[in-house]
Amino acid sequence: MDVAGLHHVAMAVDDLDEAIATYGRLYGATVELRGRIESQGVEAAYLKVGAGRIELLTPLGDDTPVGRFLAGRGPGMHHVAFSVPDVGSVVRELRSAGADVIDSEPRPGLGGHEVSFVHPDSAHGVLVEVLAHG
Amino acid sequence: MDVAGLHHVAMAVDDLDEAIATYGRLYGATVELRGRIESQGVEAAYLKVGAGRIELLTPLGDDTPVGRFLAGRGPGMHHVAFSVPDVGSVVRELRSAGADVIDSEPRPGLGGHEVSFVHPDSAHGVLVEVLAHG
Repeated sequence: MDVAGLHHVAMAVDDLDEAIATYGRLYGATVELRGRIESQGVEAAYLKVGAGRIELLTPLGDDTPVGRFLAGRGPGMHHVAFSVPDVGSVVRELRSAGADVIDSEPRPGLGGHEVSFVHPDSAHGVLVEVLAHG
Repeated sequence: MDVAGLHHVAMAVDDLDEAIATYGRLYGATVELRGRIESQGVEAAYLKVGAGRIELLTPLGDDTPVGRFLAGRGPGMHHVAFSVPDVGSVVRELRSAGADVIDSEPRPGLGGHEVSFVHPDSAHGVLVEVLAHG
């Protein structure tokens, strides 16, 4: 499996502006990119923390995956994203290896990169995103 | 705040060997370091995933922080770790900024690095570790 690295770790939050302010104040984080991903029902921001990157996600409504996550578990860590050179080929490899790939057709994520999500049941309770290297 | 980058993202798992095998099979992860941290009540492993790093944690007993985490929430994402040049000075800055630092005296983590944890209430439900850059 051809994974380049850890692209980001994502947190679900109730209030995006407030969370951006917290990470800025405590850890010197700065916004790299911010936008709405209507297909995923979220507003999202990438923050650089030193050389690392986190993503903050807030739902556009209660009846969205992140809205239901917040209702069920409260704010907290949501997924980890690995960067890969080619999402389509990684998805095929993951499916061959028996992983439950949620998006068998990659879809656009924040910044327009192709992304696919892999069900938490395939990695000991961890939702994994694979996204085109960038 | 002087954060160098994202050192690792940690997952709590029921069976360390099984989880290492899963991340190896699906994402090509390889064990970088493995050991017991008695003071934290865990057996832990750092895995390299491309240029990135995850940590897998399994409790040494039910009555440990990770044991209670697993009992309450099941396996999943546990904390995010930022690397910093000096844990002591970062801890002082975090406390000045009003963060609830769990370990005001840094303690040894996996590999002997100094680490301190910051309570999830200080970052929208996310347990944050700061550790000496390495």
